[in-house]
Amino acid sequence: MMAKATVQIQESRLRQDLLDLARFGEDPGRGITRTALNDADLAARQWFKERMREAGLKVHEDAAANLIGRIDPAAGPTDRPCIATGSHIDTVVQGGKFDGALGICTSLEALRAIRESGFALPCPLELLVFTDEEGGHFAGTFGSRAMFNLLQEGEMEKSRGAGMSSLAQDLKRMGKDPQKIYQGIRSPSEFRAFLEVHIEQGPVLESMDIPIGIVEGIVHLGRYLIQVEGKAGHAGTTPMHLRDDALVKAAEIITAVNEAVRSGGPEIVGTIGEIGVHPGVINVIPGEVEMALDLRSMKEATLASVKKKIDEIVHSTDNAKIETILTKGGVKMDPGIMEAIELSCRQRGIPFHRMWSGAGHDAMTFPTQHIPTGMIFVPCVGGESHCPNEDIRFEDAATGAQVLADTVVRLALQEFLHPPP
Amino acid sequence: MMAKATVQIQESRLRQDLLDLARFGEDPGRGITRTALNDADLAARQWFKERMREAGLKVHEDAAANLIGRIDPAAGPTDRPCIATGSHIDTVVQGGKFDGALGICTSLEALRAIRESGFALPCPLELLVFTDEEGGHFAGTFGSRAMFNLLQEGEMEKSRGAGMSSLAQDLKRMGKDPQKIYQGIRSPSEFRAFLEVHIEQGPVLESMDIPIGIVEGIVHLGRYLIQVEGKAGHAGTTPMHLRDDALVKAAEIITAVNEAVRSGGPEIVGTIGEIGVHPGVINVIPGEVEMALDLRSMKEATLASVKKKIDEIVHSTDNAKIETILTKGGVKMDPGIMEAIELSCRQRGIPFHRMWSGAGHDAMTFPTQHIPTGMIFVPCVGGESHCPNEDIRFEDAATGAQVLADTVVRLALQEFLHPPP
Repeated sequence: MMAKATVQIQESRLRQDLLDLARFGEDPGRGITRTALNDADLAARQWFKERMREAGLKVHEDAAANLIGRIDPAAGPTDRPCIATGSHIDTVVQGGKFDGALGICTSLEALRAIRESGFALPCPLELLVFTDEEGGHFAGTFGSRAMFNLLQEGEMEKSRGAGMSSLAQDLKRMGKDPQKIYQGIRSPSEFRAFLEVHIEQGPVLESMDIPIGIVEGIVHLGRYLIQVEGKAGHAGTTPMHLRDDALVKAAEIITAVNEAVRSGGPEIVGTIGEIGVHPGVINVIPGEVEMALDLRSMKEATLASVKKKIDEIVHSTDNAKIETILTKGGVKMDPGIMEAIELSCRQRGIPFHRMWSGAGHDAMTFPTQHIPTGMIFVPCVGGESHCPNEDIRFEDAATGAQVLADTVVRLALQEFLHPPP
Repeated sequence: MMAKATVQIQESRLRQDLLDLARFGEDPGRGITRTALNDADLAARQWFKERMREAGLKVHEDAAANLIGRIDPAAGPTDRPCIATGSHIDTVVQGGKFDGALGICTSLEALRAIRESGFALPCPLELLVFTDEEGGHFAGTFGSRAMFNLLQEGEMEKSRGAGMSSLAQDLKRMGKDPQKIYQGIRSPSEFRAFLEVHIEQGPVLESMDIPIGIVEGIVHLGRYLIQVEGKAGHAGTTPMHLRDDALVKAAEIITAVNEAVRSGGPEIVGTIGEIGVHPGVINVIPGEVEMALDLRSMKEATLASVKKKIDEIVHSTDNAKIETILTKGGVKMDPGIMEAIELSCRQRGIPFHRMWSGAGHDAMTFPTQHIPTGMIFVPCVGGESHCPNEDIRFEDAATGAQVLADTVVRLALQEFLHPPP
């Protein structure tokens, strides 16, 4: 039924692009600091625009400084919905070479390979390079949210701290008018699909030795504050039987929470990543402990049932309480897109694993109810990300680019076979 | 065999002294800040000198700014060894009304009552008010250590931080020459005994409803650093079975250490009062945890055996280690002095409890092998100390003063009955 895929990406070219891009913002030993719209980011964008033009894409920059590279269809109207791919170009402070970069470089290589193949495109293709996914200025996924009119009132004027610039300031520095940010808003009807390749940022694929993750969605998230009160006292003069040590009680909660999360099965993770002890002095019994709990699950019901167990653990501890800081519903990827990615893998005999994403991405800010959206994960070494050690195997990157290219062609063929009415 | 005690202290007078002294350095709602040689401390010393003179004591100030009030014997040579009592006048920052103050005010009341009783003293009595027990400048128990030539080279020039004065600076401000600190050194042979009344700074006496603690000694102390390494990772993308969470391991250590200490019986206490988690971010699995452990026991063997159990706990945890920061041997109080205090209690039907001190005091810096030394503890409300809430019952303070006065008379009578050769 499907035409045999004939598009062939080139690993060496992709590898060179990734290495070239990694030079922008590099501080040897301290990773890459290419926070959105800093000098390194501006230079990288310039370099990437040239690469897109070389590959035959028409390039423009929107009001939110998103870069858009486009290939028009071989024939017929140019305003048909496009198939878009992409990711972001910015990094966190002292970040890695591949978070974001892998998505735009695999997109470039996929579009380049498709163009070289001579495949007659029935619809336009776009390569989207989003601004400030990492939240270097204030909140993350700025560019993709700007494109779909999801910005909060006033957020462009905010910055992360004194002496740090806001997006409004940096857009002005580029000669843009932040008041005209709305000019970049696009209708979902302009898109047939969006695909993002990204490093997994976790250890699952590497541990299974599988090169491709097909993302089913982003997890449901809950963040909670656990507070435990005890009674501070002199560490030397208070006998054990007269103590109410908040840290000893907190330790029991940490152990029990960990067990409760593990008992919830493979679909949930839970982490206590922050702990504060008061007064926090070597010779004083802890009088108060505060802990931050992060729970994420693919299934809302699993999250709710584990949270209920955790509530019971906390409430069965003297003078302990738990309150919700934040909850965020999950986002599901499009079943048709997942199917297309899976077929692309099967056709080339590439092992794949369906999985959820525990982290947020530009793809998650797409209006997925209107634009079929999908993500392809590539393993990262040791599961490490957002750090100088972040690494991938280039053959895995190439596999990701190939699956992306094949999937774009597959979706385009569907478009060709089943054109919109 | 013993003469019936006829000395009678007056609770109302003691109470008034304690309340008057508590005005120096008081910051309503924030306790007393009478750190050594600050303006409040200097004013308090001036006030206390006048109280000592009113009570008939000869007063002088030594090279370390210790105040010494003295009553000569009724007859015979004035250079016989004296019976000394006292404590310190300084407080910690935002400290309480009674730590130190109780010792000097009960001493004043005891000596006043002894003088009023017409008791013919066979030896001199001294009231010692020590400088900087709390370590407001650098190390603690400065005045008592200066008196017995126990200062460290250069410590008088050190301060706790930028902009804070050293003892050398503050002594100069008082017109003293820090170079001549040696002029205050005294020979142990000048002392027949030293007695210090102090608030317990713990909850034991209050919980037993007993007004007098007879201190057997200060505990052996060990301080340790426990380090636990895990593997940092994204809280959302790392499944539970692929985690090595340093805080989860640390929590098990905290629980097991607490059990090990409790299994050591009533003679040992152990506290983890400080914990640091790295990176310490809500969405990152803890990669490293550091904890400070404070162990104290009356018995060196108990401390060693519990420490051995804790070593086993730490060593049975993956990538955890424990190292010693500090160990300090205990100090024993004089059995004869403890016996004299106990007899004073029995004679008046006052309940008492023999106990160890978990904290350090001026009495502990006395060369106890040469000077028979003892301490009398008075309960403090809720066991709280070093804070604005520090409180006592005045009837307990009066009981402490009475036991002190009786014990001084008892020791003086022994001196009278068994004069030195």
